[in-house]
Amino acid sequence: MHRAVFRVSRRMNKKLTSVRWLSAAKAEGPMFPQKEDFPGRHIGPRDADIIHMLDMLGFRSLDELTDKAVPKRIKHNKHLDISEPLTEYDLINRIRKIAERNQIWRSYIGMGYHNCCVPHTIMRNIFENPGWTTQYTPYQPEVSQGRLEGLLNYQTLVSDLTGLDVANASLLDEGTAAAEAMSLCYRHNKRNKLLVSNMLHPQTISVVETRCRSLGLTVETIDVFEADFSNRDVAGILFQYPDTEGNIHDFSEVADKAHEHGTLVCCATDLLSLTLLRPPSEFGADIAIGTSQRLGVPLGYGGPHAGFFACTQNLVRLMPGRMIGVTRDASGRDAYRLALQTREQHIRRDKATSNICTAQALLANMSAMFAVYHGPQGLKDIATKIHNTTLVLQHGLEHDNNKVTNQHFFDTLRVEPRLPISEIKARAQEKQINLRYFDDGAVGVALDETVNFEDINDLFYVFDCPHRVENLKDHPSVREKAVYRSEFKRTSAFLTHPVFNSHHSETRIVRYMKVLENKDVSLVHSMIPLGSCTMKLNSTTEMMPCSFKHFTDIHPFAPLEQTLGYHQLFAELEKDLCAITGYDKISFQPNSGAQGEYAGLRAIHCYHEARGEPHRDVCLIPVSAHGTNPASAQMAGMTIEPVKVRQDGTIDVVDLKTKAEKFKDRLSCVMITYPSTNGVFEETVADLCDIVHQNGGQVYLDGANMNAQVGLCRPGDYGGDVSHLNLHKTFCIPHGGGGPGMGPIGVKSHLIPYLPGKYFYLGFTYQEGSSPFGAVSAAPWGSSAILPISWAYIKMMGPRGLKKATQVAILNANYMSKVLGPHYKTLFKSSVSNLVAHEFIIDTRDFKKTANIEPADIAKRLMDFGFHAPTMSWPVPGTLMIEPTESEDKQELDRFCEALICIRQEIRDIEEGKFDKRLNPLKMAPHTQEQVVSENWERPYTREQAAFPAEFVKPDTKIWPTASRIDDVYGDKHLVCTCPPILDEYNY
Amino acid sequence: MHRAVFRVSRRMNKKLTSVRWLSAAKAEGPMFPQKEDFPGRHIGPRDADIIHMLDMLGFRSLDELTDKAVPKRIKHNKHLDISEPLTEYDLINRIRKIAERNQIWRSYIGMGYHNCCVPHTIMRNIFENPGWTTQYTPYQPEVSQGRLEGLLNYQTLVSDLTGLDVANASLLDEGTAAAEAMSLCYRHNKRNKLLVSNMLHPQTISVVETRCRSLGLTVETIDVFEADFSNRDVAGILFQYPDTEGNIHDFSEVADKAHEHGTLVCCATDLLSLTLLRPPSEFGADIAIGTSQRLGVPLGYGGPHAGFFACTQNLVRLMPGRMIGVTRDASGRDAYRLALQTREQHIRRDKATSNICTAQALLANMSAMFAVYHGPQGLKDIATKIHNTTLVLQHGLEHDNNKVTNQHFFDTLRVEPRLPISEIKARAQEKQINLRYFDDGAVGVALDETVNFEDINDLFYVFDCPHRVENLKDHPSVREKAVYRSEFKRTSAFLTHPVFNSHHSETRIVRYMKVLENKDVSLVHSMIPLGSCTMKLNSTTEMMPCSFKHFTDIHPFAPLEQTLGYHQLFAELEKDLCAITGYDKISFQPNSGAQGEYAGLRAIHCYHEARGEPHRDVCLIPVSAHGTNPASAQMAGMTIEPVKVRQDGTIDVVDLKTKAEKFKDRLSCVMITYPSTNGVFEETVADLCDIVHQNGGQVYLDGANMNAQVGLCRPGDYGGDVSHLNLHKTFCIPHGGGGPGMGPIGVKSHLIPYLPGKYFYLGFTYQEGSSPFGAVSAAPWGSSAILPISWAYIKMMGPRGLKKATQVAILNANYMSKVLGPHYKTLFKSSVSNLVAHEFIIDTRDFKKTANIEPADIAKRLMDFGFHAPTMSWPVPGTLMIEPTESEDKQELDRFCEALICIRQEIRDIEEGKFDKRLNPLKMAPHTQEQVVSENWERPYTREQAAFPAEFVKPDTKIWPTASRIDDVYGDKHLVCTCPPILDEYNY
Repeated sequence: MHRAVFRVSRRMNKKLTSVRWLSAAKAEGPMFPQKEDFPGRHIGPRDADIIHMLDMLGFRSLDELTDKAVPKRIKHNKHLDISEPLTEYDLINRIRKIAERNQIWRSYIGMGYHNCCVPHTIMRNIFENPGWTTQYTPYQPEVSQGRLEGLLNYQTLVSDLTGLDVANASLLDEGTAAAEAMSLCYRHNKRNKLLVSNMLHPQTISVVETRCRSLGLTVETIDVFEADFSNRDVAGILFQYPDTEGNIHDFSEVADKAHEHGTLVCCATDLLSLTLLRPPSEFGADIAIGTSQRLGVPLGYGGPHAGFFACTQNLVRLMPGRMIGVTRDASGRDAYRLALQTREQHIRRDKATSNICTAQALLANMSAMFAVYHGPQGLKDIATKIHNTTLVLQHGLEHDNNKVTNQHFFDTLRVEPRLPISEIKARAQEKQINLRYFDDGAVGVALDETVNFEDINDLFYVFDCPHRVENLKDHPSVREKAVYRSEFKRTSAFLTHPVFNSHHSETRIVRYMKVLENKDVSLVHSMIPLGSCTMKLNSTTEMMPCSFKHFTDIHPFAPLEQTLGYHQLFAELEKDLCAITGYDKISFQPNSGAQGEYAGLRAIHCYHEARGEPHRDVCLIPVSAHGTNPASAQMAGMTIEPVKVRQDGTIDVVDLKTKAEKFKDRLSCVMITYPSTNGVFEETVADLCDIVHQNGGQVYLDGANMNAQVGLCRPGDYGGDVSHLNLHKTFCIPHGGGGPGMGPIGVKSHLIPYLPGKYFYLGFTYQEGSSPFGAVSAAPWGSSAILPISWAYIKMMGPRGLKKATQVAILNANYMSKVLGPHYKTLFKSSVSNLVAHEFIIDTRDFKKTANIEPADIAKRLMDFGFHAPTMSWPVPGTLMIEPTESEDKQELDRFCEALICIRQEIRDIEEGKFDKRLNPLKMAPHTQEQVVSENWERPYTREQAAFPAEFVKPDTKIWPTASRIDDVYGDKHLVCTCPPILDEYNY
Repeated sequence: MHRAVFRVSRRMNKKLTSVRWLSAAKAEGPMFPQKEDFPGRHIGPRDADIIHMLDMLGFRSLDELTDKAVPKRIKHNKHLDISEPLTEYDLINRIRKIAERNQIWRSYIGMGYHNCCVPHTIMRNIFENPGWTTQYTPYQPEVSQGRLEGLLNYQTLVSDLTGLDVANASLLDEGTAAAEAMSLCYRHNKRNKLLVSNMLHPQTISVVETRCRSLGLTVETIDVFEADFSNRDVAGILFQYPDTEGNIHDFSEVADKAHEHGTLVCCATDLLSLTLLRPPSEFGADIAIGTSQRLGVPLGYGGPHAGFFACTQNLVRLMPGRMIGVTRDASGRDAYRLALQTREQHIRRDKATSNICTAQALLANMSAMFAVYHGPQGLKDIATKIHNTTLVLQHGLEHDNNKVTNQHFFDTLRVEPRLPISEIKARAQEKQINLRYFDDGAVGVALDETVNFEDINDLFYVFDCPHRVENLKDHPSVREKAVYRSEFKRTSAFLTHPVFNSHHSETRIVRYMKVLENKDVSLVHSMIPLGSCTMKLNSTTEMMPCSFKHFTDIHPFAPLEQTLGYHQLFAELEKDLCAITGYDKISFQPNSGAQGEYAGLRAIHCYHEARGEPHRDVCLIPVSAHGTNPASAQMAGMTIEPVKVRQDGTIDVVDLKTKAEKFKDRLSCVMITYPSTNGVFEETVADLCDIVHQNGGQVYLDGANMNAQVGLCRPGDYGGDVSHLNLHKTFCIPHGGGGPGMGPIGVKSHLIPYLPGKYFYLGFTYQEGSSPFGAVSAAPWGSSAILPISWAYIKMMGPRGLKKATQVAILNANYMSKVLGPHYKTLFKSSVSNLVAHEFIIDTRDFKKTANIEPADIAKRLMDFGFHAPTMSWPVPGTLMIEPTESEDKQELDRFCEALICIRQEIRDIEEGKFDKRLNPLKMAPHTQEQVVSENWERPYTREQAAFPAEFVKPDTKIWPTASRIDDVYGDKHLVCTCPPILDEYNY
């Protein structure tokens, strides 16, 4: 039989060309059908739906649609040079191999980055839970009470530990927080000189210098104990406690002197140490900053983690970043919301207190939950264990003639070793231990909560001490230098609020995290069609590598030869992003979109400077631009010149030309967003770029709307010199409830020398460009640990998948615009194609007159339908901007349109007098359970109408707002930014 | 300075004994304070609460409480011989190292276990999500609609693919499903002879033989095409399609002959292959069984996965296991619930259709979601890819003179290789490939969806064929043997229901999973105080290793030298469980509690047999026993003799003695649960054991209530010969919404030779005992992949933590009993200590008379308070049994008590005539959103009272039932067990 089969099979070979066989095979489908591939998972609409939607718009194919939508002149007609797509399964195998090229050594480098025990239950239930990661910034507080509470806990944690009155809900990292503190001092007293301690972490000094330089401020790095304030020209002084070498000093006298002369006092500090140490407030600090990484967030090769910022009450209105406050809702109940939003750049533009748009909400929530889980005693126990272990280490080292130079310390020692440094390095290498090597031959050792006896014994080995912890630890003199026996001992209480004293069993913390999660709308519930925010799928496969220990457990200043995996990832991602954008080089340092803008503008400035044109300082910005643009330009030290926008929403080319020529000699650059913030592919973009170039300027193309371009056109082709890429928009990093984000910048080759960089200390040298630009982030590659997300997205989508995603994003927007057409006017469309790009603005301005209805009323009413509102009143006041993204399918678009159409009918009912202008389902939205279940229902519509306003809103799947309409004004008048007292013990 | 410090430190040394220093150090606390340790996370009440609760009960310490609660005679006064506790952080490091001792080779062994691509989003959002894993069996359908829908999808999947009318919601594995099929045949026609194909997987034959032997049935293993039914003595015939060697046969004639003579036809099959093949129903199968592992569940060294069972409509009331059915609720809406529950053992006891208590709900839900995500075309594509790849392999192998003996095949080939087998093995070893080696020198190769071209090329290398897939794949003769060109081609449609055709983007499936999750109450919401079910914390750290690839990606028949990690884990867990129970050996084979009971009873029987007393068949069982006990005893072929229970709930020692003596010569064993099912530590347990031993019997101690014993007393000490341990109760495996569970058995040394075992085929030899007991599960170590959970629990708790957990479990129960005392009578307490054990029964029987209120009414009303009901009407009809476990803290106990006290007041209101006996908040509970928001509210209580019946029930955290009271009777009358038609397109 075997041979027979073989013969048959050979006979068959001869029929190779037989048409019969070939056609049979064809009917049987492909030989190896790709089971549902990743693009099919990422893109929402099924192919049949796409055909239906295209048909409705009058197109036969996606290519036909986007050929019409995208201006001919800028079209990228080549295939994207991206590798063929990997399946989800293959991708994980591949990234695992890359990750494992990173070597996990024990790191005692310190410098603000410490290993820690991330509570597994917080890792799984927050960091790995799409219910938390896919939330947006809590601008709609009624459906965001969960994360607002989490962030308020964070503020309370920071405020309690630093002893200062108020804290914000996180900044990007310690370095930028320090820079923000310095800016605040400058804004406060308008003095131009800043003093920073030479005992700060070097990366902090670097970021401060970079940021102050562009603002024209002088920074002097000094021994703070010799600071001279007598000229009354010092805006602020910044020192560190404990300092970068681990020393603890009393800054009371310095602070007194500073205050005497009107100088603000800023202190970089370590929250964990403050559980044992007197807080900075007690020696007079006005501001305290730092990072909360070591409170339950992995190292992640530098980020993301939350930077913190606290200050005294009198400075609160100058404080940068987002702040959660307590207010009341329409029912008079306590509720949380973002306080003092008027300070933010989307309102204040170049007069904003900072350009920081993306905070680190997810990481702040993790750290807050870490504190909630451990409670004050738990945190103090962790700190005590670390400190006592450090005492043992110090004792053993000194016993054998190593010199520890710290008089007082918490967890970090500066050691002048007995052995030659080369031998120390060799022994450390042998034990796979990273230490900090000072230029003068001293060695820094910073301990953390993961350190056990074996680790200390290994350190004794490195320093050639014959001790073992087991023999030393009970020696009474070990505690001699304990801070809790010194003047630095903390005596004030902290974390006394019930929330920090209730959830200490895992059962409790899991329920608490679930309660908070379930209060908030995220992408696991329904579409979040925020214009310009690109809330698309954040797939599990993309997220998984972020938890790989070979990515999480790496110190940002680990030697490069230990981080080959990360650098392979960076290189591959850079290559792909260059292929997508047409740029020549990417810098991954900026860790938010706003940081990217700042870095890009500074690169432009350095470029001009290098060409002998440092006076080029005018930045042209269309009035329709996102507020971050002018805020960044201002920070970058530029003069902003607004460019007009025409009636149809497009940039006024004539005005731009006039301005460009007028400022020909001073023109630094233009900042344009493309497609425009109005959601339109403007035909003239390439012309605009030409005009600016002709007048000696550079073109900054804001990458916020890359989701409309990938695979269709490339900013680097049609005139961009530099762009930032919001990886948290187009490239699938989840928004995390308001961070993390990543804002790497792409540049054309002439700007490569002017990229941010400059990290060379402690044996670690890294510089991106060759210019003295300086650093913009505390870590060399920003929030490295989330880059696998964007890498994975591109690798799984492949060239055709990426292009199709863009096309479907455009299709979805045009489909919705069309469906809504009879009910809402789309404000701007391309005059050429009559199409919108990937988002569109509906005009709701008339309703104010006809029905007393504002965008906020529509936004709040949408909550009753289970939807998060679109972007409100931006870029055009009184309108709503909708961006569906490619990940939402037709059915979801239809549901959202139906909701808006129902709302239009309700508005009509007001217009026609069926509802009172104040008493109607819109003005009284959103509706809470408490309201609709109440016996007292005296509204002119039914409970059902209130809570279940459409057929598709069902009890099974209803998403309830947990607060009724929030009263912002009340909250800003009665500012409370820490946890309010609890009356009911069951609530916690 | 350095030297000075050193001198100071030396001086200090001399003060070693200084009291001043020592006392200072003492005041400063421990040198290395353990930050919140794992026992502190696992155990709910804080130490201050424990003191308060003890005080209320009149005790000064936990030891004092449990010294009184546990009878002196049985107390275990030694320290548990368990290693010191590991922290969560250290534990993960340790288990990672153990896991990595397992080697992941490519496995083409097949035999019902195939590697697959587990969709990451399902893994993360179901398997790694406590919202899904910590659910209980859906006995309370109003708060379980989510998983009920998931399981109904599973039934529809099985029913559609097999072509049979009805399917159940999963069984333990393929082997037990086959055994259940055989039992059904026997129950159906009462014939004693069964025929099984010699082409079944050997482990299936083994499990069938074991189970049939104990029922006294004859099993003949034959070539089914030569089966003779003419004597009309054959109950059923079981064959496999495709069979274990990969062959596909047409069984029509066999089936016709069987039916002609009244024999039932059972077919083991592979669901994935049925997307291409004619379903078993089309050639006359009455029953189809198998495993759905390859549909999205990892291999996990044998489990857990879901076994499936489908049959024709006429057999439905004989079908074993749980079945989900559609019914309606009090509002007349469609709703799901467990159908035909009267078949289950908790009602039918020894007349139940099976003893299977734990199904595999979590895994069935994963497989169902896999089908929902891929849809019919996606599944077919996967199958086609596998099949075509197999065709390429077959073609290449045959081309080079290897003989493939399969005429028709799907994914598995039996190869008679050209090379000597030793060389094949060496080449496979070189490539890290596991194959199946038949005794006759043939080699089995089974492909799966993960196989790519490189894998096939490696297989060509193993068989020394010079081919490469790339050159072969387009050869027209490759598809010559394709099943879709044969008579076996499937023509009937499947998975046509919208649920399988809607959720194909990740955005959609994530929302669908979230919608289902949010319908169900689980431990992430509130306590689930189910008496005898021990719903305690399932911590993240315990769960994490279950996702490690070195645990998930191992085939159960991988050679032992590749699975050293697993075996280290088994050995360590065995040692710890022996220390805890006092037994000498553990068998991990039984993969549920009921399986454990069966295996334990069989071990007892084999022991008697080996001693020449095979006639010992009487099993004494107290009438208060769990229904599983008599059901297991019946399955094990024993005669059940009930033992009376006294008025106070204790076993009647006199009656036991009388019966034991009466059946002295036939006594096999007694089955006792300790502490008793009534929640009491009976003083007489050791006496009972003595009596049975004195009469030649063995003692089976049911381990369901181990949570009251760990660290306090050991069944192996006070008389037990064998116990099963519900690892999913006491040892923290989550319930998964109704499985997985694990029921390993511990035995004293004399029973060791009689443990289950016997796996020797395909080069894989494993036998636990030396007796011919046979196998009870398809895989040698049951559901190996979840054993890390119990291992981790013990390792992190340590000896003192384990004991304290038991003590707090007992404290919590006594505290609740006391708080509820003024309102509800606790039915049974120890007459000696006046205490309950870890659970207690409240007597609600009078309310039927006084207020027309039954336990179900209280259970449903508890849902309005956000609670899952306690165990209803078991073990005493008309009562509720409450088990709080140690993981719930005082506050949660107080909340639950408050709910019950509120309910008592509502009952009083009925008793006092304030409410009508039909129209009241209890009879009309639970209350849905639809009801309370409705305009038509005509009930004699308010909406607020309905939905927010206590101060602590708040809109923020309200858990809504998504169905009103379920109508069981209607559903059982109108049995629908597949997805009902959808009217509303938005719902899916």
